[in-house]
Amino acid sequence: MNGGLMGRLKLEALGKSLELVREQDGRFALHYVDQRLLPKRFERVSTREWRRVVDAVKTLAVRGAPAIGVAGAAALALWCQDGEGSIEDAAHEIASARPTAVNLSWAVKKAVEAVSGVDHVSRADCLFDLVKQMETEDELTNRAIGANGAELLEPGTRVLTHCNAGSLATVFYGTALGIVYAAFEQGKVERVFADETRPVDQGARLTAWELAQAGVPVTLICDDMAATVMAQGLVDAVVVGADRIARNGDVANKIGTYGLAVLAHEHGIPFYVAAPSSTLDAAISDGSHIVIEQRDSAEVAEPIKGVDVYNPAFDVTPAHYITRIITERGVFRPGELEFPSE
Amino acid sequence: MNGGLMGRLKLEALGKSLELVREQDGRFALHYVDQRLLPKRFERVSTREWRRVVDAVKTLAVRGAPAIGVAGAAALALWCQDGEGSIEDAAHEIASARPTAVNLSWAVKKAVEAVSGVDHVSRADCLFDLVKQMETEDELTNRAIGANGAELLEPGTRVLTHCNAGSLATVFYGTALGIVYAAFEQGKVERVFADETRPVDQGARLTAWELAQAGVPVTLICDDMAATVMAQGLVDAVVVGADRIARNGDVANKIGTYGLAVLAHEHGIPFYVAAPSSTLDAAISDGSHIVIEQRDSAEVAEPIKGVDVYNPAFDVTPAHYITRIITERGVFRPGELEFPSE
Repeated sequence: MNGGLMGRLKLEALGKSLELVREQDGRFALHYVDQRLLPKRFERVSTREWRRVVDAVKTLAVRGAPAIGVAGAAALALWCQDGEGSIEDAAHEIASARPTAVNLSWAVKKAVEAVSGVDHVSRADCLFDLVKQMETEDELTNRAIGANGAELLEPGTRVLTHCNAGSLATVFYGTALGIVYAAFEQGKVERVFADETRPVDQGARLTAWELAQAGVPVTLICDDMAATVMAQGLVDAVVVGADRIARNGDVANKIGTYGLAVLAHEHGIPFYVAAPSSTLDAAISDGSHIVIEQRDSAEVAEPIKGVDVYNPAFDVTPAHYITRIITERGVFRPGELEFPSE
Repeated sequence: MNGGLMGRLKLEALGKSLELVREQDGRFALHYVDQRLLPKRFERVSTREWRRVVDAVKTLAVRGAPAIGVAGAAALALWCQDGEGSIEDAAHEIASARPTAVNLSWAVKKAVEAVSGVDHVSRADCLFDLVKQMETEDELTNRAIGANGAELLEPGTRVLTHCNAGSLATVFYGTALGIVYAAFEQGKVERVFADETRPVDQGARLTAWELAQAGVPVTLICDDMAATVMAQGLVDAVVVGADRIARNGDVANKIGTYGLAVLAHEHGIPFYVAAPSSTLDAAISDGSHIVIEQRDSAEVAEPIKGVDVYNPAFDVTPAHYITRIITERGVFRPGELEFPSE
């Protein structure tokens, strides 16, 4: 146990995972880390093409519910700078890039509303400002989630996490890993177990790498080892992110989250979900209304003749398996969430 | 539901996954399928070198508890044909190739006992006969397991399995998949969900391929999708193999089995373990005494600086999560197993 040591967090080198940048000619571009290349290469792409941003979201070059929200608004800003046709069509195309994370449609809707009534010449600048504001708010929100969640953890905590709800999944700092970072700086985190997170390996490629960059002790495990590390008493808390949270507290998140919640429950380990309020969907009563994205079987394996492949990208964890949901507004029992519209 | 249709099993094309073969010069060689090459290539290797068989077991070219038992006896037969030094040293080296599956040490011990008192000139032939007998018994045992287990399944059953306890894991026919094959021929199996089984992907590379060859409908899923297909009501029974079973019915099997057992329990799905009596270890009272093999981290991922990797190859499922254990002798509650020494 090094629970008494204050952790020295080295997160700044990561920088923002995406950001709208005004360039020398006065026009702006989206700079983003192409997460498909990690952990081999940490590279930023710069683009002024709104459809390239849509493709980046579809292909998981940019992923993570909070990050794709900002990317969606940025794509619409780029459309306003250069695009043709109706803004409604562009907004629909952007918001449809991925169906499950509500942050995407939430951010695109917010962007459309922001330029409603604004003249065509000023729309791009208006959305540039909105995206810059979203970038700033993202980090503030994540730091608030981190501070709220860190209060739940005791010194010496071993955290298990799934997928990547880290700085890479947001503009900066992360949601689930935001809690880890805040708690680590308070000397409370001994180690993080990162699930590989098949089929796209966000845990192995992104979370393990990100935590190593940040200086947080991390052990990579395969998804099918989580039950064993729990049974061995190596896990004190499970902390994950979310893609959409229903009014009753049901949580859609990366496939595998539900199974972890069942296993945590069986082992008496608290199960925490971290998300900004933009992940809360007041419009749906429970998780049964959440559309689960089905992705290409090639993500799972090369084709074998006669073998079918099932590849749901998300699952729904019923509220009763969730100990607490942590937002920037506080720590909530799943059924007692504060929704932004309230 | 195609529960009313009798399945047409096409298993013969697979042939034996390993077999001792007398060649033209009167000496014998072990022929085995190199399972590291599947599903891309289905290739048999022929060797007369006992240490190459040990390497095949260590590197998982030959794997599966029943198969490595026969391979161990075959390695000792090859040593008797050509080897130097003491038989005890060779037997120890062979039996130590992998620690968890008791079948390996069981078969090597049986081989050593078979040539105790036999003159050096006759030992190789004596062990050739023993291995051929083991090969025959393996298939008979598996067919008996299959017949016993098939009685537990209703028409229309959707089975979920983990790792490969199929024909490839035995000489022929398989244990867990032996039950699937027997039930499929009786028209009882609608579909098998095959877990990918990280990190070595025995489910994706071997089980999915083997079932497709056999003509059994199969859907490949990632390990972290198992809970979701259970929650969706797509699974009627979980059927897995075993590497070692303790007197109290605790079962060591491929990593991930324990988590599946917990999930099956939570979803009210029966959890069946199929194994020959040679997998029963009367010498240990419970699963806490089973040595769990730790394998190289490179199986999980390429190294990332600052990232630790944990890679236990097996886990232990407590008896109380197991509905029934099926051997060639019948169907047992975990605590009421018939051990061979009784």
